[in-house]
Amino acid sequence: MKPFEKVNEADLAFFESVMPGRVYSAQAISTDYDHDEMTIYGHYLPEAVLQAQSTEEISAVLGYCNRRNIPVTPRGAGTGLCGGCVAKEGGIVLSTERMKRVLEVDTRNMTATVEPGVLLMEFPKALEGTGLFYPPDPGEKTATMGGNAMTNAGGMRAVRYGVTRDYVLGMEVVLANGDILTLGGKNVKTSSGYSLIDLMVGSEGTLGILTKLTVKLVPEPKANVSLLIPFDNLEACIEAVPEVLACGCEPTAVEFMEREVIACAETYLGKQFPDTSADAYLLVRLDGAGNEALQPMIERLTDTALGLGARDVLLADTDERKESIWNARGAFLEAIKGSTPAMDECDVVVPRDRIAAFVKRSVEIGQELGVRICSFGHAGDGNLHLYVCQDEMKEQAWNETVERVMERLYEEARALDGEVSGEHGVGHAKRAFLSQSVGGLQIELMRRIKAAFDPAGILNPGKVV
Amino acid sequence: MKPFEKVNEADLAFFESVMPGRVYSAQAISTDYDHDEMTIYGHYLPEAVLQAQSTEEISAVLGYCNRRNIPVTPRGAGTGLCGGCVAKEGGIVLSTERMKRVLEVDTRNMTATVEPGVLLMEFPKALEGTGLFYPPDPGEKTATMGGNAMTNAGGMRAVRYGVTRDYVLGMEVVLANGDILTLGGKNVKTSSGYSLIDLMVGSEGTLGILTKLTVKLVPEPKANVSLLIPFDNLEACIEAVPEVLACGCEPTAVEFMEREVIACAETYLGKQFPDTSADAYLLVRLDGAGNEALQPMIERLTDTALGLGARDVLLADTDERKESIWNARGAFLEAIKGSTPAMDECDVVVPRDRIAAFVKRSVEIGQELGVRICSFGHAGDGNLHLYVCQDEMKEQAWNETVERVMERLYEEARALDGEVSGEHGVGHAKRAFLSQSVGGLQIELMRRIKAAFDPAGILNPGKVV
Repeated sequence: MKPFEKVNEADLAFFESVMPGRVYSAQAISTDYDHDEMTIYGHYLPEAVLQAQSTEEISAVLGYCNRRNIPVTPRGAGTGLCGGCVAKEGGIVLSTERMKRVLEVDTRNMTATVEPGVLLMEFPKALEGTGLFYPPDPGEKTATMGGNAMTNAGGMRAVRYGVTRDYVLGMEVVLANGDILTLGGKNVKTSSGYSLIDLMVGSEGTLGILTKLTVKLVPEPKANVSLLIPFDNLEACIEAVPEVLACGCEPTAVEFMEREVIACAETYLGKQFPDTSADAYLLVRLDGAGNEALQPMIERLTDTALGLGARDVLLADTDERKESIWNARGAFLEAIKGSTPAMDECDVVVPRDRIAAFVKRSVEIGQELGVRICSFGHAGDGNLHLYVCQDEMKEQAWNETVERVMERLYEEARALDGEVSGEHGVGHAKRAFLSQSVGGLQIELMRRIKAAFDPAGILNPGKVV
Repeated sequence: MKPFEKVNEADLAFFESVMPGRVYSAQAISTDYDHDEMTIYGHYLPEAVLQAQSTEEISAVLGYCNRRNIPVTPRGAGTGLCGGCVAKEGGIVLSTERMKRVLEVDTRNMTATVEPGVLLMEFPKALEGTGLFYPPDPGEKTATMGGNAMTNAGGMRAVRYGVTRDYVLGMEVVLANGDILTLGGKNVKTSSGYSLIDLMVGSEGTLGILTKLTVKLVPEPKANVSLLIPFDNLEACIEAVPEVLACGCEPTAVEFMEREVIACAETYLGKQFPDTSADAYLLVRLDGAGNEALQPMIERLTDTALGLGARDVLLADTDERKESIWNARGAFLEAIKGSTPAMDECDVVVPRDRIAAFVKRSVEIGQELGVRICSFGHAGDGNLHLYVCQDEMKEQAWNETVERVMERLYEEARALDGEVSGEHGVGHAKRAFLSQSVGGLQIELMRRIKAAFDPAGILNPGKVV
């Protein structure tokens, strides 16, 4: 591969002609653009930031950069956790943050078409009054829908409803050479050649830049309830998960949480968690066609949990009660972040019956290497979020320790037939771990696919493969 | 691309050394192997048929054929409808029909691992007593699970549960050069690099040969009911679909059927359909946690249907009643086949609100060109099966007419933003239509992907792209 070119004055003039007033270079670039949510992975200031407003602008810029051999890093809201939207190899950051129109809500086909920059927290407003909702529910509500699609984000409700991939029906994507590709549309199933759309989902902007997204909507469930289930210890709590999933209560979400992490959230939010009786909890949400439809599911779940040693089953059926629990759950990441000067994270996924084993090993690794590791996550789909905290540790010791801890955690995940990332993606931070996890043959195939879409390698270089 | 080599005596000797007693050539090849279920697409006798029993055998044969430049067509039960498993370019047919072991049912992770040749009708036996089931439900129960995965088969229950793609968690695949690739496993979500597994699903054996499959299982719903809903005419019937889907009754299946097709099935089965009052019906199945949970859904559906002009809503809650309806639905393809000397089929998918428009146009096209076109299908996901029947038509007129009809039907589907195939795939029969439908840029990307996996092009040549 040829070395990349630096952005020069002529390049800036061209960008300015395409996106007048929306090109930033040198001192005009906000340092917000030099990192994502994980500052531990370094700061990389791009040579220019372009804020696109249309597909045509993106097409023009990509065609130009492809000829000039200038790297292009696409970026949404910058809420990623693996450095995926950071210009590690220089060049430009192409931001879609201004492309935030909901273009259509089609109630008859139960689809919506949006620009990539629509925020997850804004989108529900467009659906008000339609009786429809968009199930993917990643914790980070200030993320963009485009970013969610390009990382195949998951979220709490994946147990019942699936992940973002399951909701992407159509895409408009600009390829590295500027070609505009339309994939899928409003059809809810297809067997019409290789699934290019599934290749794009989760490709983290390395195969193309998303400019339009059509997602599937589903009828909003009329009723929901959350159950907070205290257990004597984490092991008993997580051991209960397969039975909870199999008992026929059709859970929407099954989360696990430990007292230590709850305490962080209590401090962070300045609010007490509604229960203080136990060290470990399962939090289960059920959705149903109505309160009467939920009743047998609640009973089934309660019987199952008590039979597996739960201390109690606490029903949250008022908005206030639900909020106090879910707000705590939603604050975990920020709360842990606020409790330590620095941290690193790991987002592995393992088969559901091995979560307990993995968490146990992570505790042992933490003890062995002398660091605090907080974990919480999506017990219902085997996806754990582990946070390694610096706390009082000195800089050099921390740097060495965190590297060893991460290696050990990914090694354990591999040994349990797990994968590197359940929903956060690979970016540049997890590349080496992906390669160790899937092996040389898969990486080679991924590289060939990358070359098929982006022969010059200008799109988000240094990411994924 | 170099022209392919013919299979010679030395090749046969090598194959025999790998699969002793399971290599057939010349007169020993059953003519069953020269076609699939659609004989209209021609008969192509392979130069040899090999019945594999293990991954290692397939790896050895592929490595050999790749070096010798001999084409390899993988084949399951041969129940396809697009010529996908037919050796159109000569070479060998590599059959996985003997690889029919269920290797594991893991109730804690709710997964099963099978060899590709397990028949759809056999698989439920392995799940008996587990309380789990495998939702994909294509009409053709003598198909293999491997074939279903490689065509991304859909089936009746896709409205609620999704298609085969949504259930494939892991695969073992042999690549063209003999390399054995393990993709995924038992993890239920992942964002770990490009989704090679999604690329394999629906690739119709052109990227690799499936040798092991891990699928997701779900808890069996405790109760189900079917509702047969007669309408005055097809248009009113299909127009009701979006409302039925949005009313919150969570249908598992939404099928439409016309009197004419029902009559074919009555003749074929020698049994009367339970209702004769109407020209068009919606058939809806609901699954639930128990009879009490179904009740509000039945009420909601009934109100919705009657409000949209349904003549009645007939409840089938006994096994006998359900069977008489679903057996008729299941017999449609064979019944139409038995009613005409030859037929061609079209498996388009369109956005759900355009099914009525498409069916109407298909009737007009049939009238205009003087052929009978029977249609039925998955109204709930916009996937139609249309059968163009030869009936009394003379051979030459038929050949010309059927070509024109198919062109017109696919043209209409394109005009309605539809796609070439909802679930049957592309094979060799629908290649030209795929290319017209998705355009040159997508075909070019698919070709590059094909070359990334199979540089010599020996795997199932002449199919898909």
